[in-house]
Amino acid sequence: MISDDWRGDAILKGLLAEDLGRGDVTTNATIPAGVPVRGRIVARTRLVEAGLDVARATFSLLDPNLTWEGDPREGRWAEAGDSLTVLGGDARAILSAERVALNLLQRMCGIATATRAFVDAVEGTGCRILDTRKTAPGLRVFDRRAVAAGGGKNHRFGLDDGILIKDNHLAVAGSAREAVARAKRSASALLKIEVEVENEEQLREALASGADALLIDNRTPAELAALVKVARSIRRDVPLEASGGIRLDNVRAYAETGVNFVSIGALTHSVVAADISLELDIA
Amino acid sequence: MISDDWRGDAILKGLLAEDLGRGDVTTNATIPAGVPVRGRIVARTRLVEAGLDVARATFSLLDPNLTWEGDPREGRWAEAGDSLTVLGGDARAILSAERVALNLLQRMCGIATATRAFVDAVEGTGCRILDTRKTAPGLRVFDRRAVAAGGGKNHRFGLDDGILIKDNHLAVAGSAREAVARAKRSASALLKIEVEVENEEQLREALASGADALLIDNRTPAELAALVKVARSIRRDVPLEASGGIRLDNVRAYAETGVNFVSIGALTHSVVAADISLELDIA
Amino acid sequence: MISDDWRGDAILKGLLAEDLGRGDVTTNATIPAGVPVRGRIVARTRLVEAGLDVARATFSLLDPNLTWEGDPREGRWAEAGDSLTVLGGDARAILSAERVALNLLQRMCGIATATRAFVDAVEGTGCRILDTRKTAPGLRVFDRRAVAAGGGKNHRFGLDDGILIKDNHLAVAGSAREAVARAKRSASALLKIEVEVENEEQLREALASGADALLIDNRTPAELAALVKVARSIRRDVPLEASGGIRLDNVRAYAETGVNFVSIGALTHSVVAADISLELDIA
Amino acid sequence: MISDDWRGDAILKGLLAEDLGRGDVTTNATIPAGVPVRGRIVARTRLVEAGLDVARATFSLLDPNLTWEGDPREGRWAEAGDSLTVLGGDARAILSAERVALNLLQRMCGIATATRAFVDAVEGTGCRILDTRKTAPGLRVFDRRAVAAGGGKNHRFGLDDGILIKDNHLAVAGSAREAVARAKRSASALLKIEVEVENEEQLREALASGADALLIDNRTPAELAALVKVARSIRRDVPLEASGGIRLDNVRAYAETGVNFVSIGALTHSVVAADISLELDIA
Amino acid sequence: MISDDWRGDAILKGLLAEDLGRGDVTTNATIPAGVPVRGRIVARTRLVEAGLDVARATFSLLDPNLTWEGDPREGRWAEAGDSLTVLGGDARAILSAERVALNLLQRMCGIATATRAFVDAVEGTGCRILDTRKTAPGLRVFDRRAVAAGGGKNHRFGLDDGILIKDNHLAVAGSAREAVARAKRSASALLKIEVEVENEEQLREALASGADALLIDNRTPAELAALVKVARSIRRDVPLEASGGIRLDNVRAYAETGVNFVSIGALTHSVVAADISLELDIA
Amino acid sequence: MISDDWRGDAILKGLLAEDLGRGDVTTNATIPAGVPVRGRIVARTRLVEAGLDVARATFSLLDPNLTWEGDPREGRWAEAGDSLTVLGGDARAILSAERVALNLLQRMCGIATATRAFVDAVEGTGCRILDTRKTAPGLRVFDRRAVAAGGGKNHRFGLDDGILIKDNHLAVAGSAREAVARAKRSASALLKIEVEVENEEQLREALASGADALLIDNRTPAELAALVKVARSIRRDVPLEASGGIRLDNVRAYAETGVNFVSIGALTHSVVAADISLELDIA
Repeated sequence: MISDDWRGDAILKGLLAEDLGRGDVTTNATIPAGVPVRGRIVARTRLVEAGLDVARATFSLLDPNLTWEGDPREGRWAEAGDSLTVLGGDARAILSAERVALNLLQRMCGIATATRAFVDAVEGTGCRILDTRKTAPGLRVFDRRAVAAGGGKNHRFGLDDGILIKDNHLAVAGSAREAVARAKRSASALLKIEVEVENEEQLREALASGADALLIDNRTPAELAALVKVARSIRRDVPLEASGGIRLDNVRAYAETGVNFVSIGALTHSVVAADISLELDIA
Repeated sequence: MISDDWRGDAILKGLLAEDLGRGDVTTNATIPAGVPVRGRIVARTRLVEAGLDVARATFSLLDPNLTWEGDPREGRWAEAGDSLTVLGGDARAILSAERVALNLLQRMCGIATATRAFVDAVEGTGCRILDTRKTAPGLRVFDRRAVAAGGGKNHRFGLDDGILIKDNHLAVAGSAREAVARAKRSASALLKIEVEVENEEQLREALASGADALLIDNRTPAELAALVKVARSIRRDVPLEASGGIRLDNVRAYAETGVNFVSIGALTHSVVAADISLELDIA
Repeated sequence: MISDDWRGDAILKGLLAEDLGRGDVTTNATIPAGVPVRGRIVARTRLVEAGLDVARATFSLLDPNLTWEGDPREGRWAEAGDSLTVLGGDARAILSAERVALNLLQRMCGIATATRAFVDAVEGTGCRILDTRKTAPGLRVFDRRAVAAGGGKNHRFGLDDGILIKDNHLAVAGSAREAVARAKRSASALLKIEVEVENEEQLREALASGADALLIDNRTPAELAALVKVARSIRRDVPLEASGGIRLDNVRAYAETGVNFVSIGALTHSVVAADISLELDIA
Repeated sequence: MISDDWRGDAILKGLLAEDLGRGDVTTNATIPAGVPVRGRIVARTRLVEAGLDVARATFSLLDPNLTWEGDPREGRWAEAGDSLTVLGGDARAILSAERVALNLLQRMCGIATATRAFVDAVEGTGCRILDTRKTAPGLRVFDRRAVAAGGGKNHRFGLDDGILIKDNHLAVAGSAREAVARAKRSASALLKIEVEVENEEQLREALASGADALLIDNRTPAELAALVKVARSIRRDVPLEASGGIRLDNVRAYAETGVNFVSIGALTHSVVAADISLELDIA
Repeated sequence: MISDDWRGDAILKGLLAEDLGRGDVTTNATIPAGVPVRGRIVARTRLVEAGLDVARATFSLLDPNLTWEGDPREGRWAEAGDSLTVLGGDARAILSAERVALNLLQRMCGIATATRAFVDAVEGTGCRILDTRKTAPGLRVFDRRAVAAGGGKNHRFGLDDGILIKDNHLAVAGSAREAVARAKRSASALLKIEVEVENEEQLREALASGADALLIDNRTPAELAALVKVARSIRRDVPLEASGGIRLDNVRAYAETGVNFVSIGALTHSVVAADISLELDIA
Repeated sequence: MISDDWRGDAILKGLLAEDLGRGDVTTNATIPAGVPVRGRIVARTRLVEAGLDVARATFSLLDPNLTWEGDPREGRWAEAGDSLTVLGGDARAILSAERVALNLLQRMCGIATATRAFVDAVEGTGCRILDTRKTAPGLRVFDRRAVAAGGGKNHRFGLDDGILIKDNHLAVAGSAREAVARAKRSASALLKIEVEVENEEQLREALASGADALLIDNRTPAELAALVKVARSIRRDVPLEASGGIRLDNVRAYAETGVNFVSIGALTHSVVAADISLELDIA
């Protein structure tokens, strides 16, 4: 089982089912039952490790007796050519699970590596890199773990474990005052209420309404800095998040405005898969 | 329902469940039940359309009375600023489904746009662009549709609807001769048998074994051209597929070797999401 | 569908399955297909209405053409003898769904009525009545709706949408300081952190650690009042919740200590079902 | 697994899912992986034990290596302060499963304790206490086990494993004669047919129709005694069940009429949870 | 939906999934979306109709707007060449569902036709033909309906809605007396207890133990007749069932012994599919 | 787990659920928990073994500690009276799983035995016996394994792993040329395209269109021989399959026409269950 996520096996079983369908006809036809193999999972480019436990759990679903060597190094750098793990088990199981396991692992390492670049870029500012809900549908649990492995911080998981009142909510509700009041009335008392704002007027109204945090969207670093100053003057410790148009080449400027968080959709919506392969040890 | 895929609604329900969890607390708290809204889905960059029907089906699961205007334009270019559709329905439903619908749509349009670039690059060569099984786990049905919308051709869906004997199978089975013989014996007679080869010796053995098609992996265009020549001299019409290290800047050279197909993992493992937004019409 | 809960139908289908199993042999044997009936759901004692929409959705799963008359009166008093609704539909469907629908309705009205008694008891104090996770397993969504209908406020839904660090967590983690620090580091930024305390030392440490809210457990009203005073002197607006040994006959004393919330497990763990029956109109 | 119920684990997994949702954020944040703990489940009031195996199975789903000490004492009295079991295992697993396990256990012990009171009240009369289908939806398997632990006898499980023709069936079918004839014709030959009656005429008709058992509803003890006499004069050994308005203070009078069974909805629709807690042994 | 079986659609969806898998590649490739067709389902041999509603529900799952003409004739003879129905709808849906629908229909008509032969063979004896649990796993609901359509009577559905104490139970339990006593103690009071016997001693013990019905297995008609006589002399109206070695050519001899039921496993374990085809009307 | 089919356990769990429902009331009532038994599965007629691993997996789902002796003999003859296996385990588990396990085993041995008869009948001709999709819905995976055990070859599993353009597809598509062209365009390149033909004109068109294989339906052996000759003259090695009206008494004549395959629906649509019983060793 994947540590921390009791739902992991059920999710992975569904993902294996997508690829296996009625069964791996190639492997079942060409490989006899019960042949043991050993192999290595190898990084072919420099990457931040993430998801080795997910890959292991995937293989283990088809071979419960899988062996797996190597200390967990979640979040650490691996160099091109490094073995991420040495695994052993039934040849059929390993070949049938290979693609799903690698697809997950390559995506997760890709996300972690990209996240780390952003984290490094804001080092020393105190600003944290947040993920968003712009994940590959169905893979959020893995995308989030990869962001965390890369040093990022997770935003809410979904629509049910955090309140984020966005522009469209405000437009339909009529005002931040009304929207926040409704949220305070009906939602659980343990959920913070974050409100999206784009300018000073909205920011002042949101704070006056009792918002617990603010998301400031689509501002230049200079505009953002000005809004941060206003917000801090009203409530010194209010958590502030910036989003919109933030890239690796400008993230430090955003971070230096004093916001607590910048959130980056591209971490998970535009992933470059890390290059990783499974190499069997066959003489 | 999504045309052609009778499983679509069940898959989409699962993807909505990931995001909605116990329910959209923000929307349920701030938006009254029964408020109608209208809005547009807008391309913010030039893109090849794919997955509008998937987005529609996603919204429809939360609002069965959704309205949706605009002709289907799957596979056609949209320009930055174009409305991809005009939709109308219950505000709660539309806001709660928005993120999942857009996550899917942005990914699919991203894949279709990238695929089209490859297709255009090989225009006139007769070579087709194939996808691979390197899809985001759980999203293969959508990733494949997007590749097709971009003008690509789909490879096998999973491990059960095609036989592809790869290097690892060959290594465990001992020889192509043995592996192909086993596959012919036990697999369904309606599945073709494709064998992965890297050099002339393997190629000759695979063809002699009765392989129906060959995958030639990790060759330079020149090496590939030589192998293609050998293969055609043995069996003129054998389908040949090239893979490994093929990028937009070298794909034409590969295509011009005379292979029937080049397969590109990056189409689906390293997607750049298209920039698309939902804009509500609220006065 | 039940408004606000998109999962409702799936849950209700499971609950019907429990009772129906392979099918209602009595009804299928004795009642011909297609016989229409009308009937009334009648309160046999004074009660606060809750869950009429749940009952309706239950019947509707077996008869999609069910008719249902009467304005929704969720949260309002009904007197003994009042018709809560007039329904009509297929006799087989109504008789087969009756028990599940009434079991849910009687439980929900029972919870709402009990909650209302607590809410009335603290009227004017500003203190809100909270539910707990001590619900009937599988029925939390309904138990919570009933508490809300009775005027109570819902606490977190489950273990994933709020952080409540209890005595056992503190004992294993070593200290409130350490536990809160860990929670701040790894959990989503939109979840508040509530810490359970039993005395002034714990209370001071929890507030110093940055807890967002406190749960004060197992104190007499006098002890509680003293702790509230200390807490308010440190952070004026920190949300405070009292629990443990609070009954209808002493809840007002607890509420008058100035806590924001009292939580009452018995609202949902020891429910007295309201007496409600389905009376068919058959001459 | 719970003995006797092969479906138990699947049901419990669903109940854990309700509470855990995306995972126990508090425990995962504050408790390191792999910390062992021991603890005791303690009765805080006198109670009849029921459901310890259910609680154990619940904890075991999150920690398959759970230890559990103490002989099974299903159906026996425990005194306030007694340890019902001593358990040990992974701290995260135990804390995450605690609430669901205790919610089930407290309900089941509450039901068993109440059932025992009724059973004791009719001791020596030969009359058995029956449960009804007025259970908490989704928990019937547990509610029934608790009734049995308290010395009660289980009625049919659901609508598919017994035929009980009630007043509404009779009204729609037209007559007991017609309804019983239909049931005999179409239902399985291994199901008994019980008919609900309220007066002598109905009772005579039901017996003449070939009913295998009678449910006599809503009579005073005196009225019931008269009907029992009539029934016994017609068919000496026909099983007779009484229901309606039977409470702990009048159940003996009903039992002394000579009925074989009295059924008590309140055993399961209005449960008072037993007071039980989990106390970890932490120095 | 199939009348009488609320679970029908879910079961049929699973059966369609088995055949459709990822989708009907032939039909989706060769038939455009939205082409209407009409066709007839035609009997190619004389048969007893059963399962037309099941076939209809199967097609309807893929085309909710299916048209279906012809009165229901469940249980009646159709001659070779008769149209069982005229249906119309979307060509893709009809072609994709055809095989599953016909597989079910051919099996059900085959079962009904065979059952009718047995029913006709015992006409006038008062003996009823029973099915058994020797059905095709997963298809019991359909196999039973077909038996009923053929004029047979259904035995218990499964292991949970009837008590049948067989030789193996008796062997492990030690005696019929003990086994029946245990069943009376713990099982629901609405389930009859049937005991399997092979000779007079067992028969007498079973009746003395309070068995509600007897299954007499593996006797010749003459042996059976003698046992029936004994049983009737002890309890005149005890239901008696014969099984074992009963075929169409000897069933009347068994029926004339005076047993109430003979049960025939071959009705469902060795089905001869009726010959039925779908003929599209295409000029 | 069943070798080769990773979905086996989930399917078997569903089939057990059908029979067990809420649980085996007879066994649970009459057999104490934890009683060990041993027994033998015995062939009562001569048969070809198939499905012993399926039976074992079925029992194992209820008793994970089941013992099972005897070498696998899939596809070999067993004589009447032979023990197919000796098994041991928990009495309750074995009795509760018995019927489902035997139902599957008897069907699979019946199919394998019938298949072997056809295989033997065509011995020496080089023609292979194929199954069809005319299986018992839900049991295709087992029906196919049994055909293979009997020496037959499996056709496509379902509608998604092979393209078979039948008369109805041709009729709607307009022509074989058009249908094959569409299939080549949109379907995966690893699926062969088989076209159904009934006469020489259709045969010539199908081959000219690029069909990979032909199904020749409903011809006499003589007609078939003529068509085979034509086909071979056009493309020497095109796979040819015959179907329609082929029985054990004429299959050799069909095989001798030179077709590669004959497909026999009756192998799976009209199964005669092999006679097999479970005999417990009870002194």
